[in-house]
Amino acid sequence: MAGTAAPSTGQKLTAELLGTFILVFGVIGAAIFSSANATLLGVAFALGLSVLVAAYAFGPISGGHFNPAVTLGLAVAGRFAWKDVAGYLIAQIVGGILGAVVLLGIVASAPGADVVATFRAASTGYDELSPAGFGIGAFFIAEIVATAVFLFVILGVTSAGRAAANFAPLAIGLTLTVLVLVAGPITNGSFNPARSIATAVFGGGDALGQLWASIVAPIVGGLIAGVLYKLVFDRAAKLSA
Amino acid sequence: MAGTAAPSTGQKLTAELLGTFILVFGVIGAAIFSSANATLLGVAFALGLSVLVAAYAFGPISGGHFNPAVTLGLAVAGRFAWKDVAGYLIAQIVGGILGAVVLLGIVASAPGADVVATFRAASTGYDELSPAGFGIGAFFIAEIVATAVFLFVILGVTSAGRAAANFAPLAIGLTLTVLVLVAGPITNGSFNPARSIATAVFGGGDALGQLWASIVAPIVGGLIAGVLYKLVFDRAAKLSA
Amino acid sequence: MAGTAAPSTGQKLTAELLGTFILVFGVIGAAIFSSANATLLGVAFALGLSVLVAAYAFGPISGGHFNPAVTLGLAVAGRFAWKDVAGYLIAQIVGGILGAVVLLGIVASAPGADVVATFRAASTGYDELSPAGFGIGAFFIAEIVATAVFLFVILGVTSAGRAAANFAPLAIGLTLTVLVLVAGPITNGSFNPARSIATAVFGGGDALGQLWASIVAPIVGGLIAGVLYKLVFDRAAKLSA
Amino acid sequence: MAGTAAPSTGQKLTAELLGTFILVFGVIGAAIFSSANATLLGVAFALGLSVLVAAYAFGPISGGHFNPAVTLGLAVAGRFAWKDVAGYLIAQIVGGILGAVVLLGIVASAPGADVVATFRAASTGYDELSPAGFGIGAFFIAEIVATAVFLFVILGVTSAGRAAANFAPLAIGLTLTVLVLVAGPITNGSFNPARSIATAVFGGGDALGQLWASIVAPIVGGLIAGVLYKLVFDRAAKLSA
Repeated sequence: MAGTAAPSTGQKLTAELLGTFILVFGVIGAAIFSSANATLLGVAFALGLSVLVAAYAFGPISGGHFNPAVTLGLAVAGRFAWKDVAGYLIAQIVGGILGAVVLLGIVASAPGADVVATFRAASTGYDELSPAGFGIGAFFIAEIVATAVFLFVILGVTSAGRAAANFAPLAIGLTLTVLVLVAGPITNGSFNPARSIATAVFGGGDALGQLWASIVAPIVGGLIAGVLYKLVFDRAAKLSA
Repeated sequence: MAGTAAPSTGQKLTAELLGTFILVFGVIGAAIFSSANATLLGVAFALGLSVLVAAYAFGPISGGHFNPAVTLGLAVAGRFAWKDVAGYLIAQIVGGILGAVVLLGIVASAPGADVVATFRAASTGYDELSPAGFGIGAFFIAEIVATAVFLFVILGVTSAGRAAANFAPLAIGLTLTVLVLVAGPITNGSFNPARSIATAVFGGGDALGQLWASIVAPIVGGLIAGVLYKLVFDRAAKLSA
Repeated sequence: MAGTAAPSTGQKLTAELLGTFILVFGVIGAAIFSSANATLLGVAFALGLSVLVAAYAFGPISGGHFNPAVTLGLAVAGRFAWKDVAGYLIAQIVGGILGAVVLLGIVASAPGADVVATFRAASTGYDELSPAGFGIGAFFIAEIVATAVFLFVILGVTSAGRAAANFAPLAIGLTLTVLVLVAGPITNGSFNPARSIATAVFGGGDALGQLWASIVAPIVGGLIAGVLYKLVFDRAAKLSA
Repeated sequence: MAGTAAPSTGQKLTAELLGTFILVFGVIGAAIFSSANATLLGVAFALGLSVLVAAYAFGPISGGHFNPAVTLGLAVAGRFAWKDVAGYLIAQIVGGILGAVVLLGIVASAPGADVVATFRAASTGYDELSPAGFGIGAFFIAEIVATAVFLFVILGVTSAGRAAANFAPLAIGLTLTVLVLVAGPITNGSFNPARSIATAVFGGGDALGQLWASIVAPIVGGLIAGVLYKLVFDRAAKLSA
């Protein structure tokens, strides 16, 4: 933000809302409309590149979280003020749902469209909601580890004094591309409660019934990574500084 | 442009023409010749990377719009002089048509080639021109929202004082890759009247008959984003500056 | 090369040899071993990323041409000394052939392998050598225009005073990814006489018989772009400087 | 590391462990769960982007090797202290095995899963372990040359005084994407003893029996490149400095 005024709270929340809107519009749109043609790699790039571009566009305003698990992981690592957490979470959830509403409008415009089935297929979960039929144990392992990896990368690339700080949005976005390639077939790829809420609210009973898991698991992964990163890397850095 | 002379108007218009030529040559060429093998993801990267490389090459000369909806969106946001708009639009349309002419020459050289059918299939539109058969309502939602997202990213990454300003062409190009993955199956992926004109003029009656929609919808999306961005982010920034 | 000694002529030629080796090893290796699984998009990324990484690694030493059409296009544009051209061309051709020799060793190790058929399929050309059966007219249009686009991007991103100069290898490499998606099905994707020589020398009579076209067309495209760029962008820049 | 305290040995080893964990979790996870859908290109990007993001996150702490062949190649090139080699190798091997353990937990949770067959298919090797059935000769050529190319790129992009030093993780990661597209069908893509150990230990007798080759070949390639690079590029640079 060198050379510009500090953004207001309203601007920060708008940036989080817009970024999460772009994330959901991008990855769920790709999953609904082009995964049959562009394969899982298309969906993986849709998520990674959505976050990459939104983080370059809005990261300088809000920090570019677009994800409650990121906001909470950064807070527990001492990188984000707890008092601002609630506002960010609400903006992210609203932005994600708005992205899903736009896609719903497109899907619903087709004669004979089954909107609920479309959003159910885009929802995250285990058993019948897992693309490859994995159970709840695999779901929790995959989502916790994947989100922890995501937070470790975020905390690493945004550490103070990094010469390559301008590459942070690139690295953060492309991490999600990798994580979809690993965990997409297992959990349908959440790592982000706001993204899972956005599809579950239109996905019917199964999607809503499993939504708790897509909220809990990424947040647990984010908190574990936030605590571990601070213990291993930041504490020692401060001691020797 | 640090250290070099300011580009002349002729150089700026040539840069816009060349950039839009590369955009159409890249994405329509990929759509015609390799989408069957490289899938929709290939077309999505062809568009994104065409704009990425053209913006690195010619952006320092002209700003790297290559798209009437971008030029108009930037103008309404106060980022581009209205007096230069007409010249840019003409250069973009001419560059796009020249790109299509080169591809037409290649297609037409094959014995028995159906040039009109080839360009019709590459044209943007709804109903019979929508790859997945979506109607005009879905067309307008998808093109308006996608182009608005595109302009939001452009306006964000090119804001004054951004430390990662050199990443702007990367983020701008890759946004288009995401947007093709979302809206390609719905509208065949315009977000750019110059790209849609380039294929419609050789695509026969259906393509020309629907061309108005591919001109109106992206421009509406660009103008909405330009106005909103200025209201939310730029006005406050100026007030507090 | 800030802070380091100027590279010697031997180092420059070694850098060109190694870079062209990596280019041929990467793109022809991908074409031979994984195009059936990874599709044309895999081959397109193999070429683009090979040049991207070799240009970051060896560009600071030699300029990172790895391609006779680039060396000649830069020379005619006044960006490279004519006296150094011959050495660069020889290093590029030798490096490319060495890359093909390594791949040949791998192919030949398989029992019953048809080495000539493998390299014929990886050779560039028209009619029976064109993957989609295009003729010599389409071949020349595609190779000339594609190589001209390539040189325009190179000349643009390497212009003096560009703030994003460090992105030049990224933009240059990814241009080739786009060009393969457009011209791959037409010509099998040369844009580079050294790459075409490397496969033709092991590809049998058809490949050798058409090799002249893959040498002439890219060089013509490179020279046209070099002259045009200098006339439009560099001359005026000097006049107003 | 400008502006921050020097990392401790424990932090360096943790960074190597975490980076190699992410590498194995990313590429082997993609190979196991999504290669059928996302094709070999998905696996190639999973490896390349895993290393790219881990190198941006942890490279400033440990140098970002994540690979015994890299550590040894850098040591022989005079870029890494021999006394630190053993610790790095152990951290890499442990991190890789931990990544495989997490994936094993997910695979084993599925009823009727054949864990050994899954890890055997993800193991590197020749003959019955080569995806395309290549023999030991092709294995050694491919792994030695590919790892040498990898080290040449690493040594090039991390040379002192490079203006584009911040692009080193990008170039290093994307080199691996190219190498998987070339050598994946031949050797299943090691270039890294830690990655091969991680799958072989759970892959049964064939995988363990061939593991020596996946340890020897990449290290030979890394050492050859390290020696050659130093002779050609670094010695002369010092003489003329």
